[in-house]
Amino acid sequence: MLGFRLDLGRSRVCLAKKGLFEREVKVEGHLIDSLILSRIYDRIIELGGDFETLEVRLGKHKSDTSFVRMLVKGSSVENLGDILEEIHALGAVSIEAADAVLVAAPADMVFPDDFYSTTNSPTQVFFGGEWLDVEDTMMDKVIVVDPVGKRAFCRPIREVRKGDLIVVGESGVVVRPPERSRESTGIFKFMSSGSSSEKPAPAVIRQIAVDLFNVKRAGGKIAVVAGPAVVHTGAAGSLACLIREGYVDVLLSGNALAVHDVEADVLKTSLGIRLSEGVADVRGCRNHIVAINEVYKAGSLGVAVEKGVLKSGIIFECVKKGVPFVLAGSIRDDGPLPDVVTDVVVAQQEYKKHLKDVTMVLMLASTLHAIAVGNMLPSTVKLVCVDINPASVTKLLDRGSTQAVGVVSDIGTLLPLLAEEIGKLDDCR
Amino acid sequence: MLGFRLDLGRSRVCLAKKGLFEREVKVEGHLIDSLILSRIYDRIIELGGDFETLEVRLGKHKSDTSFVRMLVKGSSVENLGDILEEIHALGAVSIEAADAVLVAAPADMVFPDDFYSTTNSPTQVFFGGEWLDVEDTMMDKVIVVDPVGKRAFCRPIREVRKGDLIVVGESGVVVRPPERSRESTGIFKFMSSGSSSEKPAPAVIRQIAVDLFNVKRAGGKIAVVAGPAVVHTGAAGSLACLIREGYVDVLLSGNALAVHDVEADVLKTSLGIRLSEGVADVRGCRNHIVAINEVYKAGSLGVAVEKGVLKSGIIFECVKKGVPFVLAGSIRDDGPLPDVVTDVVVAQQEYKKHLKDVTMVLMLASTLHAIAVGNMLPSTVKLVCVDINPASVTKLLDRGSTQAVGVVSDIGTLLPLLAEEIGKLDDCR
Amino acid sequence: MLGFRLDLGRSRVCLAKKGLFEREVKVEGHLIDSLILSRIYDRIIELGGDFETLEVRLGKHKSDTSFVRMLVKGSSVENLGDILEEIHALGAVSIEAADAVLVAAPADMVFPDDFYSTTNSPTQVFFGGEWLDVEDTMMDKVIVVDPVGKRAFCRPIREVRKGDLIVVGESGVVVRPPERSRESTGIFKFMSSGSSSEKPAPAVIRQIAVDLFNVKRAGGKIAVVAGPAVVHTGAAGSLACLIREGYVDVLLSGNALAVHDVEADVLKTSLGIRLSEGVADVRGCRNHIVAINEVYKAGSLGVAVEKGVLKSGIIFECVKKGVPFVLAGSIRDDGPLPDVVTDVVVAQQEYKKHLKDVTMVLMLASTLHAIAVGNMLPSTVKLVCVDINPASVTKLLDRGSTQAVGVVSDIGTLLPLLAEEIGKLDDCR
Amino acid sequence: MLGFRLDLGRSRVCLAKKGLFEREVKVEGHLIDSLILSRIYDRIIELGGDFETLEVRLGKHKSDTSFVRMLVKGSSVENLGDILEEIHALGAVSIEAADAVLVAAPADMVFPDDFYSTTNSPTQVFFGGEWLDVEDTMMDKVIVVDPVGKRAFCRPIREVRKGDLIVVGESGVVVRPPERSRESTGIFKFMSSGSSSEKPAPAVIRQIAVDLFNVKRAGGKIAVVAGPAVVHTGAAGSLACLIREGYVDVLLSGNALAVHDVEADVLKTSLGIRLSEGVADVRGCRNHIVAINEVYKAGSLGVAVEKGVLKSGIIFECVKKGVPFVLAGSIRDDGPLPDVVTDVVVAQQEYKKHLKDVTMVLMLASTLHAIAVGNMLPSTVKLVCVDINPASVTKLLDRGSTQAVGVVSDIGTLLPLLAEEIGKLDDCR
Repeated sequence: MLGFRLDLGRSRVCLAKKGLFEREVKVEGHLIDSLILSRIYDRIIELGGDFETLEVRLGKHKSDTSFVRMLVKGSSVENLGDILEEIHALGAVSIEAADAVLVAAPADMVFPDDFYSTTNSPTQVFFGGEWLDVEDTMMDKVIVVDPVGKRAFCRPIREVRKGDLIVVGESGVVVRPPERSRESTGIFKFMSSGSSSEKPAPAVIRQIAVDLFNVKRAGGKIAVVAGPAVVHTGAAGSLACLIREGYVDVLLSGNALAVHDVEADVLKTSLGIRLSEGVADVRGCRNHIVAINEVYKAGSLGVAVEKGVLKSGIIFECVKKGVPFVLAGSIRDDGPLPDVVTDVVVAQQEYKKHLKDVTMVLMLASTLHAIAVGNMLPSTVKLVCVDINPASVTKLLDRGSTQAVGVVSDIGTLLPLLAEEIGKLDDCR
Repeated sequence: MLGFRLDLGRSRVCLAKKGLFEREVKVEGHLIDSLILSRIYDRIIELGGDFETLEVRLGKHKSDTSFVRMLVKGSSVENLGDILEEIHALGAVSIEAADAVLVAAPADMVFPDDFYSTTNSPTQVFFGGEWLDVEDTMMDKVIVVDPVGKRAFCRPIREVRKGDLIVVGESGVVVRPPERSRESTGIFKFMSSGSSSEKPAPAVIRQIAVDLFNVKRAGGKIAVVAGPAVVHTGAAGSLACLIREGYVDVLLSGNALAVHDVEADVLKTSLGIRLSEGVADVRGCRNHIVAINEVYKAGSLGVAVEKGVLKSGIIFECVKKGVPFVLAGSIRDDGPLPDVVTDVVVAQQEYKKHLKDVTMVLMLASTLHAIAVGNMLPSTVKLVCVDINPASVTKLLDRGSTQAVGVVSDIGTLLPLLAEEIGKLDDCR
Repeated sequence: MLGFRLDLGRSRVCLAKKGLFEREVKVEGHLIDSLILSRIYDRIIELGGDFETLEVRLGKHKSDTSFVRMLVKGSSVENLGDILEEIHALGAVSIEAADAVLVAAPADMVFPDDFYSTTNSPTQVFFGGEWLDVEDTMMDKVIVVDPVGKRAFCRPIREVRKGDLIVVGESGVVVRPPERSRESTGIFKFMSSGSSSEKPAPAVIRQIAVDLFNVKRAGGKIAVVAGPAVVHTGAAGSLACLIREGYVDVLLSGNALAVHDVEADVLKTSLGIRLSEGVADVRGCRNHIVAINEVYKAGSLGVAVEKGVLKSGIIFECVKKGVPFVLAGSIRDDGPLPDVVTDVVVAQQEYKKHLKDVTMVLMLASTLHAIAVGNMLPSTVKLVCVDINPASVTKLLDRGSTQAVGVVSDIGTLLPLLAEEIGKLDDCR
Repeated sequence: MLGFRLDLGRSRVCLAKKGLFEREVKVEGHLIDSLILSRIYDRIIELGGDFETLEVRLGKHKSDTSFVRMLVKGSSVENLGDILEEIHALGAVSIEAADAVLVAAPADMVFPDDFYSTTNSPTQVFFGGEWLDVEDTMMDKVIVVDPVGKRAFCRPIREVRKGDLIVVGESGVVVRPPERSRESTGIFKFMSSGSSSEKPAPAVIRQIAVDLFNVKRAGGKIAVVAGPAVVHTGAAGSLACLIREGYVDVLLSGNALAVHDVEADVLKTSLGIRLSEGVADVRGCRNHIVAINEVYKAGSLGVAVEKGVLKSGIIFECVKKGVPFVLAGSIRDDGPLPDVVTDVVVAQQEYKKHLKDVTMVLMLASTLHAIAVGNMLPSTVKLVCVDINPASVTKLLDRGSTQAVGVVSDIGTLLPLLAEEIGKLDDCR
């Protein structure tokens, strides 16, 4: 009926040669340097398989890529299929290029059973004789192919419609894990080993500043995800400064950040604590509710800025500068403010829209919204996560990419020093 | 026009005697034992005021209440007003009973400026010559009085309608902080000093079991708030057992708990980790998406149980036993499942509905949903919070009540031992 | 034989009136404000006892002390004894003054069985018709009375010699828990509620600076306890600056701080990480061993400064300024340096000697040595503890005193800002 | 004079070919699988060098080792020397075998300047025409060669004597990093990715039990490092059981474990908390001092067991079973007990003596003593570390070996379940 293969069975079954359960695969790239070959060998052995190296071309120089051809062996058709699927996610593909197998979604919001589940790495599907880049790469989604427009998209379950052509099995799909950035500078260079609370703080801060500066100079896009601790710890002014200076292209957050930002401007407190002195304000518990009420009286945060109710702070600078912000609702919200997107599915769509083409993300003392953003990011986006809780940082960095670094520090003391460093770089420009 | 006082000014101004800025107040209860008198004195002094003790009647025996009458002095009308508001939240009221001052809400979702902001302690308002109990006590809300029905309600901003009569100032409002429970047994008795990771685990577990047992024997209602770590750590079977045995009256959670509970039943993994062996499953990352797909194929969790797709686990037992569960959406959700309430304002209402008349709440390795529930609970509800992260426990216990205890432990090892202890008590019955 | 009572039995037995198991006690001070009365009532009830309030004189003004006389009742002689011992530690004493009961130590390093175990609060013993102040107050020690010199001392077990006269039971001993400081300013005023990672950092830092400044202006003594993270995080220069400016009277630490301080000066790295850039140095793992070797070559840290091997840093400033430092050994030490006191009992004595008459202690990212110091401090000494790990801070603050505050922050970013704030105060002088 | 080369200069200088700054090296082993080749390439590039692959022999099968020969290029003599030293620690050695360069220690406790600093991996030195295994491998020490006995030893600075022949530079030294264990079972197999608090607890516990069981069945030696939380959390009985059943060959700990173990036996409390009920005991703060006093009265822990003062618990089982225990002193100790080794340098020697030939180490809720042990262990020893604080676990696992796994759990609930699992295995025997 349509001009491409449709297959309802498990695509993996047909891959094994009869009786032998083996298959020739190849893998290319900075194999040694990026640990990819190690992981492939590891996974084969862990799954009880075996391999034979058929051909090796190691790069002679650091700029060369390597090429390995190997015969992968399983103990059964099933086992070989399992192994091939696992090493496929690491970039190992069959020697013969085969079209991706597509199966139509049986109903709205229902995948075919053997759906291919995406990684967050750049991915291509072979279809109609050519390689299509999968757009909007995200983790744990499916690939929908548009056979007419010759395009492929990453799609979450709620956006799948009956009849959408969904990739099943791993045939015809290639994943290209990002290689260790050789040219990168700044924080991503020296923090390749993840996060630490015992690195020299001045050096760490300078490197982040350099990265932000370079991204903007190169015309890149920076997203900031921030939690209310930015306001509680007295660092709202520093973030406001980064916005004003043009270092923030979109702000992704929740209700609390905006509420306490308003509270800080209107009542000079955050959660009832007077910011200039650190003491509890009289009737302080009531202050954030007063802040919410002021916004409801105005109608929205934008109108509150217009009317002069809001005269400074993070949201104020966003409005003045035209920097978009998305406030996603959560069940623990007080209010929430009229600007909050209370339906989480809609909020996810808004977040995704604004994360499109982002170059670098700065996560500041945020957990819920930071995890949400982490799930939406391809592994090629640079990510710096700052939190005083090492567990929060670790959770966010489990992304298998050297593009992500964690900084365990106090946002209240780090952010002012970061704003200062960026100021110095600006002056040198 | 209406049969009660309407006042648009600051109610506090009229409270001070001319020139003297002082006012006689009284406070009754287990003043010494519950630390209330200490806090009142503290706050007066911190705010720069002074006091004179006029009359003291300390209880002679432990069952007697105490009574203190004192003259509170401020440095100005404003200062005296501040002090009175602060000590009012601690139960200190003016000698002369005065009607609460009510002001009509100027618009939908807008409070009058001097609104009274609630605590989570039992509260009464004096209106039309009698004391009305405020219903649905929650923190940081306003009190709406129904002058015809003679009732008073705690209301969040989004439920306020134009013309609702809202209490302003603190006149005519009495807060009754819960007194230290003298009769309580179990965990609440011996853990009066908050949480610890270095208490004898067997004793702690036995006490929680006794509390759960006694609450049920007395016809009380138990709510459980649980996070997905319950499934990841292999403790889903133990929670399922508590549900089956009748120890859970409502389950409040989010998308992830249900997703991984389904994954554990259908695929025997949680986040791709095989539960029986702890090793990563082949294509394991894909498993929770498969679980979501299975539920979408059935249509809902309830139908999945009916159709036999789901054969065991937490949700299975809830459905079989008729125990209601509410799954509140969050922006980090995969899917989310069709059963998830994606609008957080609606989810809050659902949670609140099910928390009505709850006697005891058990929070298990949950943060987001546990904080949401904490915000909705009056200080009289017993609360036990178990988490391996001390910071999560501390955050949840900042409620100024001895009804709440925290247990820093591993849910994966604690929950099986708890289920066992409850089994022993059941056998003795 | 000697001019005072010797008693080998349990002193408590004789306190109860025959058949009634009750006893009249009194307590004086800022009873309500300091929560002492609450704790006394609490403990009596928890132990199954009862009480009758006989006389109450509450202070009329905030500067007045209160007085309560009460009849304490137990269920048996033993029970009454237990209750009296417990409330005794809270300051409740028998109406009739009785001499402390002394028993000679039966052997070197052995206490008599019913020894009185000290709290860290100021304590007096009634002996020979007068009240003796117990010197060198520390937690969990015994009191040795010198009947000739009319003095009383707090002594650890290893310093007790056969025949030392040791207080047993609680008779004749009065504890005076410190009252909530009403006049205090700075960090101790606004942080009465313990620690937090979400306070406004600039305000917190300013307050600590004010406290340090005021202590020095008043001629007080400041001890600093610091861990190696001060060097790792790049903050050694800031601490060196505080020493140079006269804000440190003694430095108490361990081997690692000194090793990495030398490494930072000689090799410009800390644990092999280049401090100016944050990157791992070539052969970096070896650097701290090189630092240790350099000190061994010189002979000691002091000689290394003299010879010009050491030209800057924390230890350099101590040596130059004549500020004493004690480096206590621990089993995890590399080296350790020749200056380290390797016997921990000797190190404890050295620490104690230098903590004598200290007014304020600053603990910076230290755990082992900070806990050691915490155990040696009376509850009247001001204590500020800074650490990025909330658990470390909590552990140190469990001292039952409002003289201690915790700051959860990053020492690498906080210390430079603190040094800057103190500089500003110095300039204003 | 002596029959081997003596060289006082920097040995690295002579390694570079004139003008070219390059050198041929080789590396053998499971290069890909163990990530070693990746790390070598990485480090060369990070240091600004380059490389040319001359020969590659990748193992065809999983049991084959690989061989790579490459030309390493530096930008200068210094740079090439730096690179060679760094990759040397990863196992890359010069093609031509050269004798190790030895320099005599100039004084007691002083190293020659260019000393070779050890890793914790198995190491050999080429001397007198043969390869000597370095004995007592530990991190951050030097290698002392005995030219007569033809032996090489790892030695800390305090044990170096004037004239000891110490290896300098990296010439003639080969490091053999442990390869990923292919045959290992139990916990080390499935936890290759480090630690987690969200693994299925029953599976984790079963695997540890299997490892302990297999080590003992194979005649291996097990060391346990335990902190006082084992007693506080009520798990002392479970550890005592493991000792009784023969699963502990040596116990390494500090004063507090023994003190509270005695307290638990004699007074039934730990830090004053009654273990059976979890409530604070009357005069509870005093109990651990009473425990210390009881031991001083007996003279030592061993005598206390003999005299029947001590009738159960961890120390009791050690004494009865003849299992040696070493209690290392620390500055925060109360007492310390007469059995405590108060000089930390002596304690290190004792620990090292008992760790000789150990097969597996179990670290239970210990930090100080666990870090000390970690520093002494070669990377070939299996290590399981259990703690409720993820930071403690991480700190201990930074050892670059797949022989170490961390378990984030509550020792109070995990240890009883572990003892139970081992009991099951014993029954099957």
